[in-house]
Amino acid sequence: MDGNTILLATVGDPVAQVQTPARMPELFAARGINATWVPLHVTAANLPLVPAMLRGIGNFRGCSITVPHKMAMLTLVDRATPRARLSAGVNLVRREADGSLTGDMVDGLGFVAGLADAGHSVRGKSAWLVGAGGAGAAIAAALCEAGVAWLGVQDVDPSRARAVADRLSPHFPAIRIMAVDAAPAAPDFAINATPLGLRPTDPLPFAIDGLPATAVVCDIIMKPAITPLLHAAEARRLTIHPGAPMLTAQMPLYLEFFGL
Amino acid sequence: MDGNTILLATVGDPVAQVQTPARMPELFAARGINATWVPLHVTAANLPLVPAMLRGIGNFRGCSITVPHKMAMLTLVDRATPRARLSAGVNLVRREADGSLTGDMVDGLGFVAGLADAGHSVRGKSAWLVGAGGAGAAIAAALCEAGVAWLGVQDVDPSRARAVADRLSPHFPAIRIMAVDAAPAAPDFAINATPLGLRPTDPLPFAIDGLPATAVVCDIIMKPAITPLLHAAEARRLTIHPGAPMLTAQMPLYLEFFGL
Repeated sequence: MDGNTILLATVGDPVAQVQTPARMPELFAARGINATWVPLHVTAANLPLVPAMLRGIGNFRGCSITVPHKMAMLTLVDRATPRARLSAGVNLVRREADGSLTGDMVDGLGFVAGLADAGHSVRGKSAWLVGAGGAGAAIAAALCEAGVAWLGVQDVDPSRARAVADRLSPHFPAIRIMAVDAAPAAPDFAINATPLGLRPTDPLPFAIDGLPATAVVCDIIMKPAITPLLHAAEARRLTIHPGAPMLTAQMPLYLEFFGL
Repeated sequence: MDGNTILLATVGDPVAQVQTPARMPELFAARGINATWVPLHVTAANLPLVPAMLRGIGNFRGCSITVPHKMAMLTLVDRATPRARLSAGVNLVRREADGSLTGDMVDGLGFVAGLADAGHSVRGKSAWLVGAGGAGAAIAAALCEAGVAWLGVQDVDPSRARAVADRLSPHFPAIRIMAVDAAPAAPDFAINATPLGLRPTDPLPFAIDGLPATAVVCDIIMKPAITPLLHAAEARRLTIHPGAPMLTAQMPLYLEFFGL
């Protein structure tokens, strides 16, 4: 760290749980990048401060956006990539040379890449996605782009699940995309994209009783590394896929997005 | 660094030269403080962003203020300590529990403490201070508080030197304080508080030809560690005092101010 250090950040509310600030220094060191990645605890009411900071702080190159700001940040950037618009949210924002702000969404790409790194291809498979917030919407879009055959989206707020399905369907006419309110018959992947599991007192995001023995149970929560959902799946001898690979797969995309 | 890391910063334009971000990690580690100190490159036009950040980012506890913002920042805080008002500037700003902002100025205290650490007492001595900007005004106030007998303040803009002398005189009636436009007869201390010396092409801030052999020539510039002024003084076998001790002496004051 010195006066020339490039500043990057993760913006969220809360931020205590974010992993990127702890993970990035090793990557910066390995690549000889003089940058630091800090947490920024910003409430929804203060979110417009973040674009103001990106425009007004010379060495603040960009940030990642986490819960609950991904959808709101889409409305605060000057332009967004097609995958961000398809996801109705951004998890990355950078300042361009002309001072304008570009948003991107690589949560879904990171999730699918993390699955692939673990040997799980989603092409032609069926996926039950629980949680249609910022990360869930991005994962839904990326599953479609990766060629799932069937996608069921569920949310505690059914209108959010329908909105995701309605947004994606016209773009992927070959895929059966629908909002659901219960577990489908035999999904290949059952994915938690809700925040349930961050707190020890949270209920399970969904019941795993009806899942087939071949199902891969996925969680996007990174802390705890093995959530109660994944513990329950392990106890039933189902294959599990934790949250960490989603970030690991995204970190090089972050650097690429920020031109580092 | 993790999601609970407290954010602190040095705000300036430029910031490439600032030393605090590089010096603080050692102090944080020694005291077991989970905090990071980053540079923030902010122009004068964007300075109001800094109080907005202090109010709006939960884990941004405060910042130090460097050239050229010390005087302007005094007008952007909710309250300032007596020594900050006497210095007409702030170099530290923190957010209080109620969200209001308090400014302090410890540049001068750090300068005098750094001199004392090097064995130089200013009590009863005469000081020629060149540079009446934010840091110069703070050093002038601290020299008076430390009991100099005579203080001559010089600036390329004579009105700035007069403003410093006029502000301090009523508070220190026993000290002879005046604006000057040339070297006094035989100062005990000759102090550069201008930015001249930061760039290799800068002229010397003042001529050292007329200084007595007993004079201590001081610079507040930290990079380069030994400025051309100090090289010239060394060549004349005068005692020199570089800029680094001013920061070293301030660093514990920073932590105290931020409640760390």
